[in-house]
Amino acid sequence: MPERIFIKNGFVLTMDEKNTLIEDGAVITEGDKIIAVGKTSELEKQYTGNTVLDATKKVVMPGLVDLHYHSALGRGMYDHLPLYEFLDQFWYPKIRAMTAEEAYWGAVCGYIDAIKGGTTTANDQWRQMESCADAAEKIGIRAVLSNDVADDEVNIDTIADNEKLYKEKHGLANGRIRVFFGVEWVPIASREIMIKTREMADKYNTGIHIHLNESQGEVQMSLERHGKRPTEFAHETGVLGPDCVAAHCVWLSDEEIELMAKTKTSISHNPASNAKLGNGIARVPEYLEAGINMGIGHDSVDCNNSRDMFEQMKWAALIHRALRADASLMSTDTVLRMATLNGATALHEETGALKPGLKADIILVNLNGPHFIPLVTGEESNIKAHLVYSAHGEDVDTTIVDGRILMENRVIKTIDEQEALEKANQAFLSVFKRIKK
Amino acid sequence: MPERIFIKNGFVLTMDEKNTLIEDGAVITEGDKIIAVGKTSELEKQYTGNTVLDATKKVVMPGLVDLHYHSALGRGMYDHLPLYEFLDQFWYPKIRAMTAEEAYWGAVCGYIDAIKGGTTTANDQWRQMESCADAAEKIGIRAVLSNDVADDEVNIDTIADNEKLYKEKHGLANGRIRVFFGVEWVPIASREIMIKTREMADKYNTGIHIHLNESQGEVQMSLERHGKRPTEFAHETGVLGPDCVAAHCVWLSDEEIELMAKTKTSISHNPASNAKLGNGIARVPEYLEAGINMGIGHDSVDCNNSRDMFEQMKWAALIHRALRADASLMSTDTVLRMATLNGATALHEETGALKPGLKADIILVNLNGPHFIPLVTGEESNIKAHLVYSAHGEDVDTTIVDGRILMENRVIKTIDEQEALEKANQAFLSVFKRIKK
Repeated sequence: MPERIFIKNGFVLTMDEKNTLIEDGAVITEGDKIIAVGKTSELEKQYTGNTVLDATKKVVMPGLVDLHYHSALGRGMYDHLPLYEFLDQFWYPKIRAMTAEEAYWGAVCGYIDAIKGGTTTANDQWRQMESCADAAEKIGIRAVLSNDVADDEVNIDTIADNEKLYKEKHGLANGRIRVFFGVEWVPIASREIMIKTREMADKYNTGIHIHLNESQGEVQMSLERHGKRPTEFAHETGVLGPDCVAAHCVWLSDEEIELMAKTKTSISHNPASNAKLGNGIARVPEYLEAGINMGIGHDSVDCNNSRDMFEQMKWAALIHRALRADASLMSTDTVLRMATLNGATALHEETGALKPGLKADIILVNLNGPHFIPLVTGEESNIKAHLVYSAHGEDVDTTIVDGRILMENRVIKTIDEQEALEKANQAFLSVFKRIKK
Repeated sequence: MPERIFIKNGFVLTMDEKNTLIEDGAVITEGDKIIAVGKTSELEKQYTGNTVLDATKKVVMPGLVDLHYHSALGRGMYDHLPLYEFLDQFWYPKIRAMTAEEAYWGAVCGYIDAIKGGTTTANDQWRQMESCADAAEKIGIRAVLSNDVADDEVNIDTIADNEKLYKEKHGLANGRIRVFFGVEWVPIASREIMIKTREMADKYNTGIHIHLNESQGEVQMSLERHGKRPTEFAHETGVLGPDCVAAHCVWLSDEEIELMAKTKTSISHNPASNAKLGNGIARVPEYLEAGINMGIGHDSVDCNNSRDMFEQMKWAALIHRALRADASLMSTDTVLRMATLNGATALHEETGALKPGLKADIILVNLNGPHFIPLVTGEESNIKAHLVYSAHGEDVDTTIVDGRILMENRVIKTIDEQEALEKANQAFLSVFKRIKK
């Protein structure tokens, strides 16, 4: 019999069309796929598993998709710089200076952090992406990787780097590692880069990951250089499309919202990062109304400073209510879908829901604690609300990707966590020492 | 030798005037007081302890003061109702219906949740406050209690109830339990209630806990009933003052900001609650600029839905940057002070900092995890940033109140936690069943 995991006795949140919550539910995986979802009592009649996970008092749900993710080495420094100063004084020097090995440990630490918080897919754009691929392979997370591509004089990555990454790493680890083409941001990307990025994505039948309209300053800079707003320019150069993930989109004009909807471009909403860098608050209710596929991302721990997607969900759920003084906005179903199925849709991954035939990317969230009291089941169930408003990444106790248990009872199974964290810490200190000189 | 706890080898964050961070620091308590703070190596020469806590890779800091807290029985239900509907359909029916015993278990569960998240003082306004006093005594948290007082026809509490509470419970448990006089909110409080509340606070030399200017609707209702905005009315009736804690204050006029500053009234900023109920975003940078003593509160898990004060700190730090697109606002020192010393100042408690002579309300925050990488010490230390932006309540591993260890390694020592949570859950279900009829 092939490897089969039988998860039983849980609250199974399917994230299918109706976002059904099955009490006393079970999920069965075989190899890298989900093969059955239903009531424990029913499935027990038909299936056994070589591995049985008891999910009593736990939610069983699709792993979270972090739709805008940068591996990182820093955190908790330069915390009051606005976007450009942050990039110039900290982000670029750091990613220029780091070696492949330092990047590897940074990526490893980040993926451990992500897995421990219930993130099973990271849409990761950084430098030294071969190291990120190796780290993803080692830790077991599902990763979509792209390079930080900008004009040559910025001295980060080129399309050639990204193409090399594609050729070397795309499709590895049972397809768990894929490669997109990345663009840093429009004010430092030529028209040629934009056009060539689209050509590459088409040539290799893959996707694009780009930052658009993150700050008012970016919009201004794009107007000055390209005579167009960032999203208009991305549209004109063919970058937008159903294979394109645009991060941030805080300052879209009404026309740009239409462009996003028309081209079926997905947007990653990154509310905590947008807040911390002083970029503002995206008009997410309008984007949803326009029918845009909206996901959620943490951005980077240098500018957030948390990879916890539960925290990002709460920000996404509440910040629009705060701004507009309207408690009716952003339902729990909407927010949960943004963090799971919509992210998977954006990346064309066969994940984001619990359905037979989909990849087995599953998390168990432990509801045993004072912060989940009262726990109401049945028609008035408050379990979805608990996930959006009360849970933290720390409540995730088991993370499964591609049918493989990466964390169980909060213990990472694919690497010695303490040793990895120590290496990542040393890598940062070493890079930081060099860039400060 | 009296009971003495020697906490050593930690990062000691004093929250004194300079908010000093002592590396390899130590704190020593004797009885209910802190008797020494300094370098471990120095203090080891002079002191021993009957209990020694090793704080290696942990922050040792003052316990958090939750300046606006309601014990609660509900959570995760009615999550999209604006304030009035929420109060009318869920909050009032629930607090009217609950028995003293149900309230006790609700309070116990909440105090456990608070202690596990590093909150050592709760400024708690609810009903059945004798039960809250008993729960605080049992769990060991420091509590300032007041009743939900409103017009008789609202059918919640009266000033007489609050006076009875004062007489029975004020000063119990070594002064750990104190009683303030509470007012629910101005649109349902007569002029007589307001004046009498001030008289009571003066008579007993204690404080006042009131909601003010929480929503635009409240301001309108106050204008209609009293011909004044809520804070103007509170000033006119003598309620404001250095012994008064005003919760929310989302919609203060410039004149009301001046009144708050002039009367030295403290404000509890509750950003996540204000967001979730669609009340808006308080003008905190202006309040700080005006010199108002600002604390932070979670409000209630029915309308937040988290008691985690680390989460509240992050909201307080970031939401103003988001709204104003300004990354320079709300320094880590400011936010940490709001959650500790300012809260203590508002309540006239001798806590909120680590200084010899103050009460021993101390928490240990474990920095060992991927979400605290990199950990930078020395001049460039990112430890304060980690506390504000990256930590969650789950990172607190030890909580001490009045020199007594209430939680160690995340195990509550004053009650059987599982049993208490089960009782609280049953209490909610029982009340909910009755009010739904």
